[in-house]
Amino acid sequence: MGHLLAILPFPEPEGFRVTIQQKFPALHVTWVHQPYGITNWDTANNIDEELFKDATILTTLSVIPKPEQAPKLKFIQLLPAGVDHLLDEPIFKKDDIQIATTSGIHAPQIAEWVVLQILSFSHHARYLADSQSRGEWISHSKLTESQGPVRDMTITRVGILGYGSIGRQIARVCCSMGSEVFAFTASPRDTIESRVDPGFCLPGTGDPEGLLPTKWFHGLHKASVHQFLQQNLDVLVVCLPLTEKSTHLIGEEELSVLAEQNRVRQGPGTLIINIARGQIIHQEALIATLKKPVEESGLRGAALDVTEPEPLPQDNELWYLLNVVLHPHVSGLTTEHQNRYRAVLEENLTRFMEGRELMNLVEKKRGY
Amino acid sequence: MGHLLAILPFPEPEGFRVTIQQKFPALHVTWVHQPYGITNWDTANNIDEELFKDATILTTLSVIPKPEQAPKLKFIQLLPAGVDHLLDEPIFKKDDIQIATTSGIHAPQIAEWVVLQILSFSHHARYLADSQSRGEWISHSKLTESQGPVRDMTITRVGILGYGSIGRQIARVCCSMGSEVFAFTASPRDTIESRVDPGFCLPGTGDPEGLLPTKWFHGLHKASVHQFLQQNLDVLVVCLPLTEKSTHLIGEEELSVLAEQNRVRQGPGTLIINIARGQIIHQEALIATLKKPVEESGLRGAALDVTEPEPLPQDNELWYLLNVVLHPHVSGLTTEHQNRYRAVLEENLTRFMEGRELMNLVEKKRGY
Repeated sequence: MGHLLAILPFPEPEGFRVTIQQKFPALHVTWVHQPYGITNWDTANNIDEELFKDATILTTLSVIPKPEQAPKLKFIQLLPAGVDHLLDEPIFKKDDIQIATTSGIHAPQIAEWVVLQILSFSHHARYLADSQSRGEWISHSKLTESQGPVRDMTITRVGILGYGSIGRQIARVCCSMGSEVFAFTASPRDTIESRVDPGFCLPGTGDPEGLLPTKWFHGLHKASVHQFLQQNLDVLVVCLPLTEKSTHLIGEEELSVLAEQNRVRQGPGTLIINIARGQIIHQEALIATLKKPVEESGLRGAALDVTEPEPLPQDNELWYLLNVVLHPHVSGLTTEHQNRYRAVLEENLTRFMEGRELMNLVEKKRGY
Repeated sequence: MGHLLAILPFPEPEGFRVTIQQKFPALHVTWVHQPYGITNWDTANNIDEELFKDATILTTLSVIPKPEQAPKLKFIQLLPAGVDHLLDEPIFKKDDIQIATTSGIHAPQIAEWVVLQILSFSHHARYLADSQSRGEWISHSKLTESQGPVRDMTITRVGILGYGSIGRQIARVCCSMGSEVFAFTASPRDTIESRVDPGFCLPGTGDPEGLLPTKWFHGLHKASVHQFLQQNLDVLVVCLPLTEKSTHLIGEEELSVLAEQNRVRQGPGTLIINIARGQIIHQEALIATLKKPVEESGLRGAALDVTEPEPLPQDNELWYLLNVVLHPHVSGLTTEHQNRYRAVLEENLTRFMEGRELMNLVEKKRGY
């Protein structure tokens, strides 16, 4: 027996109820279609409170009841992969309510977005698009004299700050192009077992065993992060969860470490990519750095799918820097999103009914 | 004993002569630095004829002597991966002169270029670049309503017309992103052995064993090509060598086959990519098709690194179509080009001295 309450930004998919009732005959289902708000983080509580009363399982984007509104609630399956928007919810402190994310379902398309940005920078896509718009057949020498040579992925070292499901799929694609991957994680991964990621992973993608990185780094202190930033990284991908500890993890000091490192190696500068949360990078410090010449900044550029705040106001200068690609938090978009969410939901309903440990269970103490 | 004559668009690399003389003490080396012309296919014969007289081995971009100018010549190691610019040279008909290409050395960077174009189209990079330039935080719904949803690589079928070294590296990267690959080759590849590519392949890249395609197609006749084009291909990558038979292989009729297929499946249209030679696609037919709406054309767009002619005149309308990315034959650029060329040259010098079969030996009858 139980009541699954779905409050989601899309209508109930065809066949959903039949599948659920075949697998879990005693489970009652209520589906509430709550359209996306402008920010995609709409928490408007215009939900009939009565619905929460019976709910034993809730699946939602961001509509969370107060604990007293949902006395029977035991399990929340979130639609998002991250839980940072819930850290202040009272329900997050309740030990008897399990919360699971969809971590892993965004990995294929976000990794594509990251690879798109790396290749756009290295193959001078913006400059060539401008030339095309003028009908100008740029010579090889004019291209490389103005933009620098094309350094392909076979000589590119990619540093992945946060080696979760997204980082692992970025690693897989980069390695297929001949790159070297360095991984950074919060906790040590010294053993073969510790390198395994038990979360959701679409078959044929990712690095669930943790076999791809050449070197592993870890720690939650500045010194650990600085050591990672000193590894001659051509690309730095930020794909950490946002927590108190990761807020402004990359600030003025860290950017100075990168700059110093690039001055020493006289390389082409690091490309910094953020697909996690805007708050992980100190945005003002990043903007100030990006406005300097690459010899001084150590940054080839930045590709940002996330900012602080979102939406980013039109008058923010980050939009207009020529070494910045800024997208409106779209890297997770795909037609396959619902299919993968349903795969996680159904897997976790099964595990929950059988009393087994949930996939992508949030560890409330660490905050993700 | 012998005389290696190098006529190349870059100066003699540091350490080259020492390496050669350690490996082949009796080999005399002459290096002529002949800068690139505007088209990168400069065949200007302002070379001192005397140099050819003694040459037993020639390595060059496109400077080819008449047979009578080089009576001792036994082996030409070309800098390009293709030999189409030599098909009319008298020396190409001489059975006692072996010609080898550098096929394989361009695979990593050209595959990157192809993947960049696929992802640019699927993730709506051009539209988002425009939004960025206006400082506009586009909502998800506005993006997908105007551009269509993001269909990620996990549901993308990539058809590779010409499964050589470049096609194989494209396959590797696409498969790492979860795509399905269909391969087309001139000759049948029915056995495990026949699927192996013995040419140059950078370790850790490509598909030298031919293990990645889900389905193989072959043939040199229109019917074979049409069968391939009927496979619901989301992406069609042209990476065939240019020969008499491949000239205008994709013409009005073939584009109609694609259009009909797309009408039937009501899909998002095929993205056509050409990194081989402009002449393989009938350019006027392609332009006419691209000007139609996708429901009629069956084409989502085209990404072209090659055109006919090159450079493409500024008034050619291909430059200005909004569903076209057109680059000035740059996909092969990389800082690693010379290193990989030298790896092939040194391997082939060794094989030549030992009387073994050369790597990337051109089969003159088939023309590549």
